[in-house]
Amino acid sequence: MSNRPLFITLEGIDGCGKSTQADRLEKALIERSWHVTHTFEPGGTALGKRLREILMRDGLLFSAFSEVLLFAADRRQDIDEVIGPALARGTIVVAERFADSSVAYQGVAGGVGEERVRSLMNLVTEGLTPDLTLLLDIDPDVSLARKPHLDRIEQRGSYLRDVRAAYLRIAADEPERWVVIDAARPASEVFEDVLSAVTRRLY
Amino acid sequence: MSNRPLFITLEGIDGCGKSTQADRLEKALIERSWHVTHTFEPGGTALGKRLREILMRDGLLFSAFSEVLLFAADRRQDIDEVIGPALARGTIVVAERFADSSVAYQGVAGGVGEERVRSLMNLVTEGLTPDLTLLLDIDPDVSLARKPHLDRIEQRGSYLRDVRAAYLRIAADEPERWVVIDAARPASEVFEDVLSAVTRRLY
Repeated sequence: MSNRPLFITLEGIDGCGKSTQADRLEKALIERSWHVTHTFEPGGTALGKRLREILMRDGLLFSAFSEVLLFAADRRQDIDEVIGPALARGTIVVAERFADSSVAYQGVAGGVGEERVRSLMNLVTEGLTPDLTLLLDIDPDVSLARKPHLDRIEQRGSYLRDVRAAYLRIAADEPERWVVIDAARPASEVFEDVLSAVTRRLY
Repeated sequence: MSNRPLFITLEGIDGCGKSTQADRLEKALIERSWHVTHTFEPGGTALGKRLREILMRDGLLFSAFSEVLLFAADRRQDIDEVIGPALARGTIVVAERFADSSVAYQGVAGGVGEERVRSLMNLVTEGLTPDLTLLLDIDPDVSLARKPHLDRIEQRGSYLRDVRAAYLRIAADEPERWVVIDAARPASEVFEDVLSAVTRRLY
């Protein structure tokens, strides 16, 4: 029952619960005898871990455009090393963040330009698009209160408001791929919607 | 006599003498009362220095496409932090490597694809193109003998042969921008040609 690859991404602002939901989803799918590969960006590969340090913690100065290129390098390595091989062998891939993150964060909210980032991401992913994207939607004031330590991106509260708005608009533009889930509720309630959305695609 | 910005790049395989010639050129232009900004890729910014470590020394595994995106992030930061501001204030910029390096190394020799890398570089540089590019042309057997320690890219001798061939073809395609200089000669002789090519553009 594992020869139908499905590429699932979880998107949403920092603190929305992507890691929690991805962990639960991975576990639930494995319990149902599916083969699952779970990855995350930035950081799902050895290169990604180095880039994650640069992006999240180093205090280095860089422009929004340089930032999107660092995420792009991480993403391409994740595709070459993890996502591509997993899909090729018929495994379900659960990814925390993918190209939509770059469009919402740097493209729209960061001012690099939505079309420019979309063009860049098309080059980088060679058109690889998730089959299903779950948007864990939440108000930044709620999500940030969940995290004791904020990284350099999360420190910008108004920025996250712009990111949230961008996500909602992008999701509305492509309703056949996106499912918007209210992520302000307890994790177990959110997960019911996550599993339900995935199950509708699998069976 | 310093209000005419000129964007000069030095290209060529590892060990061809780019740093030596760029240092001499910077000094000679300053002696002639020009304002000069000297940069290099990868590594001309704080972010670039971190990326240079990853690219040259860390032994991390990454694909040729991820590699070109790391160079792109470094390049964009060099543009935003160094090259762009310098040109805007009317300074001559001398850069060791720019977008042509990615086309020759990863695009042609590395197999990512010349057109794909050109498209990527057009996005990243927003069309910023050197006014003059000096190709320090040399046989890899000669250039590698000059360097006691080889980094991860330089270790591939046949790769550098492909890079050299790519550079020569790219230069031939755009003769109004490129000047090919025989870099197997002593540095002082090479520099005569470098200075002569630059002087023809300046006066």
